[in-house]
Amino acid sequence: MHTDLNADAGESFGNWTAGNDAALFPELTSVNLALGFHAGDPLTLRESVALAVQHGLGIGAHPGYPDLQGFGRRAMSLSPDEIYAATIYQIGALQAFLRLAGAPLQHVKAHGALYMRIHEDPQAGAAFCRAVRELVPEAGLVTLAGPAGEALTQQAREQQLTVWREAFPERAYIATGQLAPRSLPGSSIHDPQEAARRAAEMARGRVTSLEGQLLELQVDTLCIHGDNPQATEIARAVRARLAEESVTLRAMGGAPSARALLAEH
Amino acid sequence: MHTDLNADAGESFGNWTAGNDAALFPELTSVNLALGFHAGDPLTLRESVALAVQHGLGIGAHPGYPDLQGFGRRAMSLSPDEIYAATIYQIGALQAFLRLAGAPLQHVKAHGALYMRIHEDPQAGAAFCRAVRELVPEAGLVTLAGPAGEALTQQAREQQLTVWREAFPERAYIATGQLAPRSLPGSSIHDPQEAARRAAEMARGRVTSLEGQLLELQVDTLCIHGDNPQATEIARAVRARLAEESVTLRAMGGAPSARALLAEH
Amino acid sequence: MHTDLNADAGESFGNWTAGNDAALFPELTSVNLALGFHAGDPLTLRESVALAVQHGLGIGAHPGYPDLQGFGRRAMSLSPDEIYAATIYQIGALQAFLRLAGAPLQHVKAHGALYMRIHEDPQAGAAFCRAVRELVPEAGLVTLAGPAGEALTQQAREQQLTVWREAFPERAYIATGQLAPRSLPGSSIHDPQEAARRAAEMARGRVTSLEGQLLELQVDTLCIHGDNPQATEIARAVRARLAEESVTLRAMGGAPSARALLAEH
Amino acid sequence: MHTDLNADAGESFGNWTAGNDAALFPELTSVNLALGFHAGDPLTLRESVALAVQHGLGIGAHPGYPDLQGFGRRAMSLSPDEIYAATIYQIGALQAFLRLAGAPLQHVKAHGALYMRIHEDPQAGAAFCRAVRELVPEAGLVTLAGPAGEALTQQAREQQLTVWREAFPERAYIATGQLAPRSLPGSSIHDPQEAARRAAEMARGRVTSLEGQLLELQVDTLCIHGDNPQATEIARAVRARLAEESVTLRAMGGAPSARALLAEH
Repeated sequence: MHTDLNADAGESFGNWTAGNDAALFPELTSVNLALGFHAGDPLTLRESVALAVQHGLGIGAHPGYPDLQGFGRRAMSLSPDEIYAATIYQIGALQAFLRLAGAPLQHVKAHGALYMRIHEDPQAGAAFCRAVRELVPEAGLVTLAGPAGEALTQQAREQQLTVWREAFPERAYIATGQLAPRSLPGSSIHDPQEAARRAAEMARGRVTSLEGQLLELQVDTLCIHGDNPQATEIARAVRARLAEESVTLRAMGGAPSARALLAEH
Repeated sequence: MHTDLNADAGESFGNWTAGNDAALFPELTSVNLALGFHAGDPLTLRESVALAVQHGLGIGAHPGYPDLQGFGRRAMSLSPDEIYAATIYQIGALQAFLRLAGAPLQHVKAHGALYMRIHEDPQAGAAFCRAVRELVPEAGLVTLAGPAGEALTQQAREQQLTVWREAFPERAYIATGQLAPRSLPGSSIHDPQEAARRAAEMARGRVTSLEGQLLELQVDTLCIHGDNPQATEIARAVRARLAEESVTLRAMGGAPSARALLAEH
Repeated sequence: MHTDLNADAGESFGNWTAGNDAALFPELTSVNLALGFHAGDPLTLRESVALAVQHGLGIGAHPGYPDLQGFGRRAMSLSPDEIYAATIYQIGALQAFLRLAGAPLQHVKAHGALYMRIHEDPQAGAAFCRAVRELVPEAGLVTLAGPAGEALTQQAREQQLTVWREAFPERAYIATGQLAPRSLPGSSIHDPQEAARRAAEMARGRVTSLEGQLLELQVDTLCIHGDNPQATEIARAVRARLAEESVTLRAMGGAPSARALLAEH
Repeated sequence: MHTDLNADAGESFGNWTAGNDAALFPELTSVNLALGFHAGDPLTLRESVALAVQHGLGIGAHPGYPDLQGFGRRAMSLSPDEIYAATIYQIGALQAFLRLAGAPLQHVKAHGALYMRIHEDPQAGAAFCRAVRELVPEAGLVTLAGPAGEALTQQAREQQLTVWREAFPERAYIATGQLAPRSLPGSSIHDPQEAARRAAEMARGRVTSLEGQLLELQVDTLCIHGDNPQATEIARAVRARLAEESVTLRAMGGAPSARALLAEH
């Protein structure tokens, strides 16, 4: 039994810092790097790749909408062609830094409002999947675990893409298997131990809904919110709990974590 | 006897159009594509690559400062590290579109104020050359023909880069072999026939200075200003004159022009 | 009988030119100036204000979404608070240039996707109207003539704003009084004479629908698309036709056009 | 005996936070607000104005170069006309929010590389002073205390502007009265008590140079670096020391600080 722990990172921009990548990376197995459209800049990207390589993480592209002011979280009506081209552009920029670092691209995961869009809008989803298939068919695509991710997952598989489904230990789910809307009380989990308990459940393919039902949820990777000030604490609690329950951490692309390797020796 | 004809292109941005690439590309053998920092955007880049491939042009990366408002023509004190990372980022984005189009990267030429900077500031020049060598050692670097280009040319050669030197048929030169300052009367050539005459002279490694001397100038490629409304007319006059004088047009990277191939068959 | 002729302008950005304001302004009575978020920049804004003052035009603020790449035409989910603040900011920037030029602010008209948004989303409309009322209660608000503009018009009036309703001589209307979707054949009018005929009809409060019905349409100002290459020709045809039919051109805020003043003397 | 304590603020951008304005503002008497070009955004600006009003601070415009990625700290060769227009634009945006808040504009202080530029380049300085004089002649201009500020101070006075000279308690000065280059050991003061000691000295028009000489320095306002994590601690130490030495804090424009008013009652 194994799972993966991913977080959005490289989200600093110029003089502004976001998250605490240096503290968080040792706790992760995969990382989604901002690529300059919604966050990040060339220098930050170079440093984030170096840090990810140093910690042996599976590295993913995290393309977003061209909206620094909105951090890529505002819906924007880019056309499917614009989504395709913006995705190619951003992944290409990351590939250059990966080539210099001798590291492979493990996965692609859309950011923020673009992530929601490709799950909900089949034309946008098709444009995004096509960009991944044409440019980096060897990389996997991260989609939402549960029914809200089914359409995109199927689109991606039809395009022969590897798909990894992600769940959020810090977010509540409702009986349909979908994320609880943020307006619902209890939709966010703030207690690291409770997040860790849920992470261990998710690694076993299950989640307890807000209503108390035990749902099945196929999960390949667990996402920690890197911009949460508690992110490192939560990741540590998750790691500890997974270890207790004998769930191995391994990057979604298959590489064991640097820590696991260290532990073996 | 042969030479190359290059122009800056792909400089439209969103709703704004710059130049007339569709009319100009058939006249060129090489093209320098804007990469989104000073001009261009992902969709424009995709279309520009497609148009360049269609016309069989040698394709170059044209990285610039992150300054859309100033079109990359305003000096900006990026650190050498920032120049290095911005260059890697921009070339990487182009490489992604080239990979999809099955076209190689022929050359790298800095844009505007960054072009001037790397010729004048050895640390900036070193950072730029290092980015090219590490990421795309197979691509050549375009430098200024004449004494103002010597320092960068030497830096690039020390890093084992292929160097191609460019001259400007539409610009006057002074007795030192340097471009005449734009404040000097006669510094710009507006007559297409005169530009063509000068282009033919340059292809033979010579240029008549403003003062009337015939100078030696080692030239591998001739640059036409793509944002000049007369650009296509000038490029046509240059082509005609070169043909008359039996100078073959061939992309700086060695590929004969699509037109030359057509003419052979 | 009188009406107003307005166009979006000041839409150049840095090195990129949009429209031909110098040719178009003499034909207009009002102008909506881009304010740097979707188009325009400080230098362009200063020059556009000077040109508008020179031609005696009624000057309007034309705030848009912060999206240069999309020219403010892509929907963006700014919150009502963000819309409020972005509108205050953009109008404030224009006011500074107006103060220096000694010219009043005549009106406010939202641009592109923001214009559509405030017509369709009551919370966005309320935020926009509140910004206008709090900052420039003396300025009028431009809304869409016809049923699609009713909600916003009513909101604005409840906030004691003067409202001017605009119609588009170059666009077809359907029987409901709404603009014909661009996907419908005949939705755009390309013949200047036909646009002029429709403008004269609109000045009389009527429009012939695509289906051939004569509809009532309360119209205070007619909008010419400034980024249409034919814009000047259309504006001239409209002026000529209005003159023939004894419809006086007068800026929506009440000032007679500079041309009308010249004709009187 | 009185002085003023100012800091750069409102420097958050979208999702990114800079400084801790809520903790720092109670310690200040004046504040320089970022205006969206190098930092800040419309929503941040609105909130910063509200916070400054709440604490009774003298509010200043803090225009900068259009370079978010570089935080306005990279030199950029804007023309004097571009500097003029960018300054008008940014001050205008602030004025709109001030009008809504019923607060006056106290001063204008350029940011980062633009601040350096207008002190060193007379044409840039003239363009900046002209923007202030034409748009907000009632506001004062902040210049560097000491010989490096003399040229700009004189330019401003020739344009009838009120000038306030600022010194930096956290920075060392050399015997010429200029700031010690950051490359010199000891150029930055990290100890809050030492910064406070120097602030009290500066309020009396003196500073001890790195070389140990007591120099005269005419100082109207003391600047605390708001992006220093210690900013609040330093401001508190300065306030305490000034109070001990019976130096009253009063905004440079003359308004006593909210705290001083509270202390009186």
